[in-house]
Amino acid sequence: MSDTISPLAPKKQPRMPAIDGLRIATAEAGIKYKGRTDLLAMVFDEGTTVAGVFTRSQCPSAPVDFCRQNLPGGSARVLVVNSGNANAFTGKKGRETTALTAEAAAKAVGCSTNEVFLASTGVIGEPLPAEKFSHLLEGMAKAAEPALWSEAGKAIMTTDTYPKYATAKVDFGGAEVTLNGIAKGAGMIAPDMATMLSFIATDAPIDARVLQDLLSKGVGKTFNAVTVDSDTSTSDTLMLFATGAAAKRGAKRVTDVKDPILVPFRRALNKMLKNLALQVVRDGEGARKQVEITVTGAKSARSAKRIALSIANSPLVKTAVAGEDANWGRVVMAVGKAGEPADRDLLAIWFGDIRVAVEGERDPDYSEADTSTYMKRDEIVIRVDIGLGRGKATVWTCDLTKEYVAINGDYRS
Amino acid sequence: MSDTISPLAPKKQPRMPAIDGLRIATAEAGIKYKGRTDLLAMVFDEGTTVAGVFTRSQCPSAPVDFCRQNLPGGSARVLVVNSGNANAFTGKKGRETTALTAEAAAKAVGCSTNEVFLASTGVIGEPLPAEKFSHLLEGMAKAAEPALWSEAGKAIMTTDTYPKYATAKVDFGGAEVTLNGIAKGAGMIAPDMATMLSFIATDAPIDARVLQDLLSKGVGKTFNAVTVDSDTSTSDTLMLFATGAAAKRGAKRVTDVKDPILVPFRRALNKMLKNLALQVVRDGEGARKQVEITVTGAKSARSAKRIALSIANSPLVKTAVAGEDANWGRVVMAVGKAGEPADRDLLAIWFGDIRVAVEGERDPDYSEADTSTYMKRDEIVIRVDIGLGRGKATVWTCDLTKEYVAINGDYRS
Repeated sequence: MSDTISPLAPKKQPRMPAIDGLRIATAEAGIKYKGRTDLLAMVFDEGTTVAGVFTRSQCPSAPVDFCRQNLPGGSARVLVVNSGNANAFTGKKGRETTALTAEAAAKAVGCSTNEVFLASTGVIGEPLPAEKFSHLLEGMAKAAEPALWSEAGKAIMTTDTYPKYATAKVDFGGAEVTLNGIAKGAGMIAPDMATMLSFIATDAPIDARVLQDLLSKGVGKTFNAVTVDSDTSTSDTLMLFATGAAAKRGAKRVTDVKDPILVPFRRALNKMLKNLALQVVRDGEGARKQVEITVTGAKSARSAKRIALSIANSPLVKTAVAGEDANWGRVVMAVGKAGEPADRDLLAIWFGDIRVAVEGERDPDYSEADTSTYMKRDEIVIRVDIGLGRGKATVWTCDLTKEYVAINGDYRS
Repeated sequence: MSDTISPLAPKKQPRMPAIDGLRIATAEAGIKYKGRTDLLAMVFDEGTTVAGVFTRSQCPSAPVDFCRQNLPGGSARVLVVNSGNANAFTGKKGRETTALTAEAAAKAVGCSTNEVFLASTGVIGEPLPAEKFSHLLEGMAKAAEPALWSEAGKAIMTTDTYPKYATAKVDFGGAEVTLNGIAKGAGMIAPDMATMLSFIATDAPIDARVLQDLLSKGVGKTFNAVTVDSDTSTSDTLMLFATGAAAKRGAKRVTDVKDPILVPFRRALNKMLKNLALQVVRDGEGARKQVEITVTGAKSARSAKRIALSIANSPLVKTAVAGEDANWGRVVMAVGKAGEPADRDLLAIWFGDIRVAVEGERDPDYSEADTSTYMKRDEIVIRVDIGLGRGKATVWTCDLTKEYVAINGDYRS
């Protein structure tokens, strides 16, 4: 947790309701941080289904490996998350820790280790002894209560400057169900490692296969469309749990991805995924501005997304935004380096509603004063039309400031 | 040109000899800069052959398009380079400027416009009127002299903190030939655009096809193995000219890439390409440290290079180096995100000669004190063994400092 809260933090936090069928406990295990909680246990009733998406890193952390192994079972009884140590690049010791933690968690709630899910965030390459916290799990499982979402969001923070919450009520074939989500973001500091973790839960009764389909499709335009610095954590984890408790209130169990009952739920889930993903971006290290980049007119949606990410990850574009400079030349450069079909002389570029370039040249009506005023905003929208096809994509990032370098480079000098 | 010279600048500059068969002139055209030269003309004797490699950007500048068009002719009589304006993303006007400049240059030296080569570096998106400098070319062609390499290197600078030179004498089948090279680097400031330009000339008699083969093969481990910030200019240009004047001193004309006469020449050329490429890196914006990254044990050389570039372009690795922190966790992260075959538990990582990680864990003999001392150096060597195959690659970059952000983002705030 940082002393200075991001200027892009939400003005107020939502009140997080309880979700039937799950209970929460947090604890101060003292893994790295002192005087704050660093351990979260979420205990699920029997019948809870689970879906997950994980980092694409070829060198994932031990907990990511562990979750991937259990995911095909589709059943979850307990989630254990610690902050302060990522248990990543810890070799055999890392696997021992996930095994021991899973055993302790399974014993605490009376389930199989196949129904345990784990996530760790913090220092990388430092062994994480299970003894540091596994003895706490039994007491936590007993003490867990439904209404502790606010505490859950805080326990998983590392260098986040604010906890990240979202909640929604949504119709589920006549019954009302709840969706709650928490996330921690891409902040990193002395020798901590950035990791995006997010956990969403609902009382809707949804089969695991359907849940996975919802989540896998939902991330494309949300969590997989945000970038802080192009660096991919070894530990990124996003999980969705469905306790099914709303079935007692008459909600029908959904077993088919095409079930029309899912329409409002899918919409609410996707909105929540975007909300949480943007909260992560807005808490990017040193971020002072949110940047939305939309590419239209590309050869395909895939091509549009690649171009958009090339712009979003360009240090030159990001420093220009930090400097409040509508430097469209750097946007052209980033389009050009993406390696996707593009024709310089067909490009048009907007900052907000101001068209700065058209047909490969500066817009004849370009006004330096107008764009300068626009660039002072907190939220910058860049749009590029490639002029070749109908492919479209939007991604989000933040600016690149000296604070980013300071957070990630200064601590030893 | 910047006020503060990079701490990584060469301690002394080489004395640049004349090259038979070419003459040089520079001028103050006042395109953008005042009180300095910003125009270079290099005039070649008849029979000069030429090779070139250019940016891979899908949105190249007008001069890049122009050179690409003339290159298959293989013959060069004049090179015109201006600094202060990149003539990039200037639409139809940009093409008019290259056409007018080429006509003026061809007239000045009495050749076809197909034998003219052009390069521009500086502001992007700003029209570059040919009238600003084309009238100077006739006088320059007349006044040109062989021994002005030092002036040539200065005229093409933009935000470089030092001019970049290299020279070599090499045996060419019994005759001695000379190789001279200049470069300008990846520095950018208020609203200038980074561009790498480099021009090499020799008096060796070499056919254009052979020359192109030498250059195309030479860049892989030199200019195409360096990165400052992963951003690709619209204007990157590297050209090699061979006047053939050494034939008068008995040098045999080389028409076959396999001719053994080329062996020492190829070696000298490759060494020069690496020398100039490293000078560019060492003058990267805000650079305080040179970073060499070698990946061994990858599945293939191509895979090794991708992993090495993933490490070299990682903001987190680069800020860690700036902070003098041997943060190997971030190196693992960058290996993981490269998307190439890698097995976390087989990785070994060295900083200099110090092995910091082995078999997916921190090295048992790891010494924080030793690595901290090592990280204070100007030149940092990171080696990663993937443990899967025999693929190997080396790339070079610089650290990412607050000065980079200041140079590229601060000028409007």
